[in-house]
Amino acid sequence: MSSDQLKVAIVGSTGYGGVELIRFLQHHPQVEIASVISASSSGKPMSDQFPHLNGLLDMELDGVNPTETAQKADLVFLATPSGVSGELAPQYLEAGLKVIDLSGDYRLKDATVYEQWYKHTAPQADVLAEAVYGLCERKGASVAGQRLISNPGCYPTATLLGLLPGVDAGWVDTNTIIIDAKSGVSGAGRGTSLTSHYAEMNENFKAYKINKHQHIPEIEQVLGEVAGKSVTVTFTTHLVPMTRGIMSTMYMTATGNHSEQDWIDLYRDYYKNRPFVRVRSKGQWPSTKEVAGSNYCDIGFALDERTGRMTIVSVIDNLVKGAAGQAIQNLNLMMGWDENLGLNMIPVYP
Amino acid sequence: MSSDQLKVAIVGSTGYGGVELIRFLQHHPQVEIASVISASSSGKPMSDQFPHLNGLLDMELDGVNPTETAQKADLVFLATPSGVSGELAPQYLEAGLKVIDLSGDYRLKDATVYEQWYKHTAPQADVLAEAVYGLCERKGASVAGQRLISNPGCYPTATLLGLLPGVDAGWVDTNTIIIDAKSGVSGAGRGTSLTSHYAEMNENFKAYKINKHQHIPEIEQVLGEVAGKSVTVTFTTHLVPMTRGIMSTMYMTATGNHSEQDWIDLYRDYYKNRPFVRVRSKGQWPSTKEVAGSNYCDIGFALDERTGRMTIVSVIDNLVKGAAGQAIQNLNLMMGWDENLGLNMIPVYP
Amino acid sequence: MSSDQLKVAIVGSTGYGGVELIRFLQHHPQVEIASVISASSSGKPMSDQFPHLNGLLDMELDGVNPTETAQKADLVFLATPSGVSGELAPQYLEAGLKVIDLSGDYRLKDATVYEQWYKHTAPQADVLAEAVYGLCERKGASVAGQRLISNPGCYPTATLLGLLPGVDAGWVDTNTIIIDAKSGVSGAGRGTSLTSHYAEMNENFKAYKINKHQHIPEIEQVLGEVAGKSVTVTFTTHLVPMTRGIMSTMYMTATGNHSEQDWIDLYRDYYKNRPFVRVRSKGQWPSTKEVAGSNYCDIGFALDERTGRMTIVSVIDNLVKGAAGQAIQNLNLMMGWDENLGLNMIPVYP
Amino acid sequence: MSSDQLKVAIVGSTGYGGVELIRFLQHHPQVEIASVISASSSGKPMSDQFPHLNGLLDMELDGVNPTETAQKADLVFLATPSGVSGELAPQYLEAGLKVIDLSGDYRLKDATVYEQWYKHTAPQADVLAEAVYGLCERKGASVAGQRLISNPGCYPTATLLGLLPGVDAGWVDTNTIIIDAKSGVSGAGRGTSLTSHYAEMNENFKAYKINKHQHIPEIEQVLGEVAGKSVTVTFTTHLVPMTRGIMSTMYMTATGNHSEQDWIDLYRDYYKNRPFVRVRSKGQWPSTKEVAGSNYCDIGFALDERTGRMTIVSVIDNLVKGAAGQAIQNLNLMMGWDENLGLNMIPVYP
Repeated sequence: MSSDQLKVAIVGSTGYGGVELIRFLQHHPQVEIASVISASSSGKPMSDQFPHLNGLLDMELDGVNPTETAQKADLVFLATPSGVSGELAPQYLEAGLKVIDLSGDYRLKDATVYEQWYKHTAPQADVLAEAVYGLCERKGASVAGQRLISNPGCYPTATLLGLLPGVDAGWVDTNTIIIDAKSGVSGAGRGTSLTSHYAEMNENFKAYKINKHQHIPEIEQVLGEVAGKSVTVTFTTHLVPMTRGIMSTMYMTATGNHSEQDWIDLYRDYYKNRPFVRVRSKGQWPSTKEVAGSNYCDIGFALDERTGRMTIVSVIDNLVKGAAGQAIQNLNLMMGWDENLGLNMIPVYP
Repeated sequence: MSSDQLKVAIVGSTGYGGVELIRFLQHHPQVEIASVISASSSGKPMSDQFPHLNGLLDMELDGVNPTETAQKADLVFLATPSGVSGELAPQYLEAGLKVIDLSGDYRLKDATVYEQWYKHTAPQADVLAEAVYGLCERKGASVAGQRLISNPGCYPTATLLGLLPGVDAGWVDTNTIIIDAKSGVSGAGRGTSLTSHYAEMNENFKAYKINKHQHIPEIEQVLGEVAGKSVTVTFTTHLVPMTRGIMSTMYMTATGNHSEQDWIDLYRDYYKNRPFVRVRSKGQWPSTKEVAGSNYCDIGFALDERTGRMTIVSVIDNLVKGAAGQAIQNLNLMMGWDENLGLNMIPVYP
Repeated sequence: MSSDQLKVAIVGSTGYGGVELIRFLQHHPQVEIASVISASSSGKPMSDQFPHLNGLLDMELDGVNPTETAQKADLVFLATPSGVSGELAPQYLEAGLKVIDLSGDYRLKDATVYEQWYKHTAPQADVLAEAVYGLCERKGASVAGQRLISNPGCYPTATLLGLLPGVDAGWVDTNTIIIDAKSGVSGAGRGTSLTSHYAEMNENFKAYKINKHQHIPEIEQVLGEVAGKSVTVTFTTHLVPMTRGIMSTMYMTATGNHSEQDWIDLYRDYYKNRPFVRVRSKGQWPSTKEVAGSNYCDIGFALDERTGRMTIVSVIDNLVKGAAGQAIQNLNLMMGWDENLGLNMIPVYP
Repeated sequence: MSSDQLKVAIVGSTGYGGVELIRFLQHHPQVEIASVISASSSGKPMSDQFPHLNGLLDMELDGVNPTETAQKADLVFLATPSGVSGELAPQYLEAGLKVIDLSGDYRLKDATVYEQWYKHTAPQADVLAEAVYGLCERKGASVAGQRLISNPGCYPTATLLGLLPGVDAGWVDTNTIIIDAKSGVSGAGRGTSLTSHYAEMNENFKAYKINKHQHIPEIEQVLGEVAGKSVTVTFTTHLVPMTRGIMSTMYMTATGNHSEQDWIDLYRDYYKNRPFVRVRSKGQWPSTKEVAGSNYCDIGFALDERTGRMTIVSVIDNLVKGAAGQAIQNLNLMMGWDENLGLNMIPVYP
């Protein structure tokens, strides 16, 4: 690797977000993975945890030590749980590293709201204030040069990309937004639990955290900014017996008198310079497999003339566009590189 | 078997509805399977099509011949596709058999609506007029003595059982009903197609027929009867990578000022003599696996105080309560037997 | 329930073996479940652990207390892990209960072999000596009146039923037996682990414990008894991304000059009075789904004339014939009842 | 794209082999896809068949016309069924194209054996004689400059890579080789059938074509060449409820007195310059997910000291190393490029 590559470190390398970062970063032409970090497995070879990396990433895991990491790397990804990232980010910033955080800790600008939904103390105020919410298709090149990016949640990414153009154009009655979201099981992470136990979740479909999911305020915060007024949504999350993929099926009363094709045109225009959003043609709705393993978000529409309601279907791979992929997209934008560097992989189908 | 058992025939025995009828009827203490019928496989042993029946049902398949069937049987189940049932039912009635039809052909009372959604000619008017829509928890013992029962669709069963008590009590703003439904792949039947192709549907979640599913008018017909006014719903169907199970997640504006517990009490009261509906306690939502292989419909509630919207989750096994099980429940009610005869199997878990 | 029903208790009711015992016993005409027992969840309602039992088994879990259990029940099933059963069985016997143990603790007659493969101390010698290895198709009515039955393991059941007639007839070169076994993930139980974690095991197929599985000496013990000489096998276990089902694919050099049809006839004769073994016709091999949810073991043959090797395919549902179903079959035989009482459920297909 | 890139065409682009070729070739730095070809869908956009390619490959499908293809391309991949490739290859060669065939038509050097196992006429003798069997780890750079490569079958690739070093070293008693192979369902292709029907294959594990699979003579041909004598194997194929992946579990009597570590060393040495074979350390066996989406073949060993038998576990992704990936590896070798060009993707995990 050339000496002018950016050196990055990944904290939380033994989780699914971390290992997916590795998959993409290994192919990134401008990046070198300088350190993989795990609080719990420090000193062990990465391939002990993930045998699929044998021969591909044979580094040992480092411990959490911002000063040492700063010797090796320029930027750190925090693929750590909420609560942990909030404490680590200031330390890594302090040590001189740029930070892209994949947790929920720096997404909500209102500390009270954060504490209400996340049930623990909000991160320190100045750092929180500095953090940029990196929904790439909204922020774009404006994140260039930032020190701390808060990478959006998986559900909010699928949901917001499906809602933003319509809400921004004022074509949506924002009092009527209902989001029925479904996720593959990898969204629950690598920590074992009865919910993620194979025999419990296989051949099963279940609802959870109805109206209680911590991604609700994140969605409402962004919709509120775009709409210019407070927006409250109804949001239900479900688990699907599959590993990867999120679909948000979204319902809303359409205002104005726009056809399905008008909506398609609106969205295609909104995303016209954004490489990772694909708007489907009339009567075609995406399925999760059509974006699996890739950074794409695919969106389709169905306008019900009987009720005046619009149904929008938005799909992503929760581990890519919903986590690691968007984090790298943020990296590219921070560095002023091409947005799709290292990310233009075709979905794995079937 | 004793001579006073009811002799039944099953048309369409080589489909999933047919074979599931066999599974339950073989354990039914008052029923003997006298004939299994298939237009396409007549003369072949049933176990050639379904090796799991080796030694358990070693009959040969009969052809479609109502007069001959009338020699052997008293009642016929039509587990045949829409379009076929419409033609066969009058013939079997004519031959003197009672009929329970699992297709959509006799569900919609308005022939025009039928033809609009099903895209073929409606059944003959007098037979259609005679058919009773057998949603058991609504009709109950009133179906005793009927000649022709139209067994409800899978999606309408899950949906209506989740909506009826609330709509009947006037607690639902019927202009606001949105139904997000998800089904296992067996709902598409045994006929092969790319949609049901393993490699396409495994590790996939997809939306289909948004606002176009033929179960929409069925749901609206019943809701309209209960509400005493026309009801229009928004209804989306999705395929889940699993074999069995349906979940309807339903959204509506709640009228009045009832608590979650009020709703639970309302539903428990409405279903208090109905053996197959189980209303979950506060904060608990059913998953599809919790009813798999059984005739149960489980229902849970989430009231969002922020929006005033009620979310109702209803699950069934699409092949049991959504097809064969409810058909046998209708048989029991027609015959004046205990409603749960032959049906009280515990869900298969895990 | 009538007062002359047998009262049974189930220790380890919150595991998959326990809950599957409940599913079958609830339909058993001669049995009443008098107590469900769990060391860890005593005092809690059973349906908290397994919501699918809501309204179907609303008992609270009892603690482990043999004296108290003896007040309520006549017989106890131990659906407890190896190591635990070995300690509990003598206590329940002492309290006057009959015992059917589903663990591996009383299967191996040689305590040294047990300790070598199970890595803990063997149960006390006199109790071990009394235990009858209840492979029903081998022991049959001879277990009537016994006090302590050791229920066979899941892999040994599938394997031995596929091998016994051939080995017994001397048609197998017992030096050449290779067993390639595959199991659904429920075989690993309800305790969470990375191996049973959904995202790790879905869309995955893995080998484990090659030549080290504790079911090896169990298979060899029985084969040795039948062959009249020591038998050593090669045995590999694999995990399949499905919940239920075991297939043993078995390879051996055939001695004598018997046709495939001769083998089929031999097996059909051997199992002619055994209701749960089904021998397939020439050229047909069973799949696991064809016995799912049922107590059947289906067996098929393929003789390779090029190599003189016989391949035998044997399938069971690991939780039924491989655990709870066979335990109830043993109960029936102990009590002198019909062998298939409460067990003649048709496989759940699809 | 630069003008000095190799132009390739893909016949059979609407099958899984074809679409997987596209996934990898789009990232290949030296290749341009000049034409995607389908006999049945000519004239339609590729993304109609595969919506995941929207915006990534927006070409229309061409028909089968070797002369026209020769205007556009230098080399053609035949991802066509057996029987079809046999006829097309001479036509494309005649038109001046190089050919890499993914079917079984040019793998067996003995036309009689081909016709016995494939049940149709063998390809013309001179073309068959010219075809090189491209098992890359065996042939390596020697395929440079060839005109017609026959890409190995999926099962033979997993199997032969697991056997070659041992057989070549004379450490295997070649009379004792038993291969128990398992494949994901995508191996059956995109054509619908009851076997690949979701509800039939989900939560199922089945054996098929025991001793009859057409990959048997392919395996035996190569083993015979390496061993220098005729080799006959026992070979069983199974379907696993997953989309991708093959595992071959192989049993053989080990000759000589080599330890497990000796075997590991032997294999590591044999494959030391081959980028896509990874030999696991002692006591570690690969699972299919650990190579999913990648061109790797991972191999592990278990020596049973009780029986003197070696068990070898070998896994690949059937669509990559078992089809499209190896075909591109052959392309690289034909062209004298780095063997791993465009192929060094990390497995997609989880």
